[in-house]
Amino acid sequence: MREHILSAEPTHSVWNRDLEPRLVVSSGDVVHMACTDATGGQLTLHSTATEFMAIDRTRIHALTGPIAVAGAEPGDVLQVDVLEVAHKGWAWTSVTPAMGYLSERFTEPYLFHWQLEPDVTRSLAPAIVPLRPFCGVMGVAQAETGAFRTRPPGPFGGNLDVRELSAGATLYLPVFVPGALFSAGDAHAAQGDGEICINGMECPSDVTVRLTLHKHQPLSGPLLESAPRTNEHGPAWITIESGPDAFKAGQAATSRMVDLLAARWGLSEVHAYLLCSVAMNLRLSQVVNTPMVTVSAAIQKSILPERKLF
Amino acid sequence: MREHILSAEPTHSVWNRDLEPRLVVSSGDVVHMACTDATGGQLTLHSTATEFMAIDRTRIHALTGPIAVAGAEPGDVLQVDVLEVAHKGWAWTSVTPAMGYLSERFTEPYLFHWQLEPDVTRSLAPAIVPLRPFCGVMGVAQAETGAFRTRPPGPFGGNLDVRELSAGATLYLPVFVPGALFSAGDAHAAQGDGEICINGMECPSDVTVRLTLHKHQPLSGPLLESAPRTNEHGPAWITIESGPDAFKAGQAATSRMVDLLAARWGLSEVHAYLLCSVAMNLRLSQVVNTPMVTVSAAIQKSILPERKLF
Repeated sequence: MREHILSAEPTHSVWNRDLEPRLVVSSGDVVHMACTDATGGQLTLHSTATEFMAIDRTRIHALTGPIAVAGAEPGDVLQVDVLEVAHKGWAWTSVTPAMGYLSERFTEPYLFHWQLEPDVTRSLAPAIVPLRPFCGVMGVAQAETGAFRTRPPGPFGGNLDVRELSAGATLYLPVFVPGALFSAGDAHAAQGDGEICINGMECPSDVTVRLTLHKHQPLSGPLLESAPRTNEHGPAWITIESGPDAFKAGQAATSRMVDLLAARWGLSEVHAYLLCSVAMNLRLSQVVNTPMVTVSAAIQKSILPERKLF
Repeated sequence: MREHILSAEPTHSVWNRDLEPRLVVSSGDVVHMACTDATGGQLTLHSTATEFMAIDRTRIHALTGPIAVAGAEPGDVLQVDVLEVAHKGWAWTSVTPAMGYLSERFTEPYLFHWQLEPDVTRSLAPAIVPLRPFCGVMGVAQAETGAFRTRPPGPFGGNLDVRELSAGATLYLPVFVPGALFSAGDAHAAQGDGEICINGMECPSDVTVRLTLHKHQPLSGPLLESAPRTNEHGPAWITIESGPDAFKAGQAATSRMVDLLAARWGLSEVHAYLLCSVAMNLRLSQVVNTPMVTVSAAIQKSILPERKLF
């Protein structure tokens, strides 16, 4: 096992299978990735809402990568162990006109600066908000040729904004291109389900991941094994599906959870369905990455015998 | 404060403001309500799927009530403290053709019987499912004249299927008719978010509530103060909205949470919006009570100073 260091710059702001990898690693290697905030560092602690409205939005999300994993081929699974996501004491959150879940109610630009203590922020008194930093974007290159904006997530991961991607979590992604081409960024020191105003606590970050390859494994979309303590949740197995319709995305995530319980815990399909009905958690992880909504279906690990899935 | 006992029979299976109250209580009184399962006791531990398909579905949900609260008038708020929901050692869960979140995948009738220990069930090995009994239906009579089926929930509460309604929780409901006319039933020994197969662990139950009236309080829909320990969540303030579109129901629940944070914790509206974006939980509480989906927006109580809202 080797350790690597990857600087943030030059960032990239599209998914594109033809990007030259900035680093090639072996399965099991650890990478320390420096990440700018989602804008590529265009904001400072002193930026105003007016300045925010003038930034170059084509640089969002400024990602660190891509990283090639030697030997990865389509049909493999890339295991991403999130070892650390560290903020740097400051973050911002905006209201951006015409974006966000309540865009008809909140129409004026607004920029808020957070002062971050190690584990909480008191910037929005009287609230004391716990911090659980994670990368809003973690993904691999898509199979299709061309350059794709990073806003919509998909089976390749990407802009999932799933708050359980904090340190201690493991993300499993399907591999679509040789080398997988993993990138990450868009760190949020904290974020609620939905990321409703269009942002979490947007911050630059130091991210450490371990990348491990599993050859020839079926996986149709992101699967998350969450950390022992993630926000208010216990550790869970989480299937993640994105689509334009929240109801249907939830159906897809639920159906995949039924598949997983049947395949890996030996439940009949109908018993897996019943178990989901009595014990599954179903959450709107993000509702703002137009045109996609992301739904997470979670089964607490405490309910089932321990299993190594890959 | 007085205590009352209310038998399950005769149950009622519609919301109707003209139903004669079976009990009249004073604000602050405690009521011990016996409740049949949702079918009105048509199933036994030995029922088969074939027998299940032949039950009289017009008796669903067989509710206990209504209970009039003396002095309640439209514009008041009824506080329902859920003191106890006790199962009786047995529950059932079905797959009912053409119903449920995955109705296209699961098309055959199926009936499953659960043996319940006090706090868990091992009936669906290898899963060990924790039990947190609650009433799927708790509601008050609607303003409109007429008899309404109980399947769709609404501002009056009803078939919310919000799993946080377990013992220790407090539900606040708007009052729409003189006396409020509270009813409850449809207990689930456990249920996941979504209630995806159309059922939780359906069971008869003994339910104890305290009913308290707050005069002239604005409240546009159900508000829930969840118990210190509810499933995998900590205690939270939860706004609940139902509608035919999951995305829009979530918007409505979020907007009400913004209102609540602004009105009761003194945050500006935009700061309340930001706080929701970084700390709110957004869940598909039920996705099967056609034509309504119910979404819960939750803020953990640990984030905010303690407040008595009513």
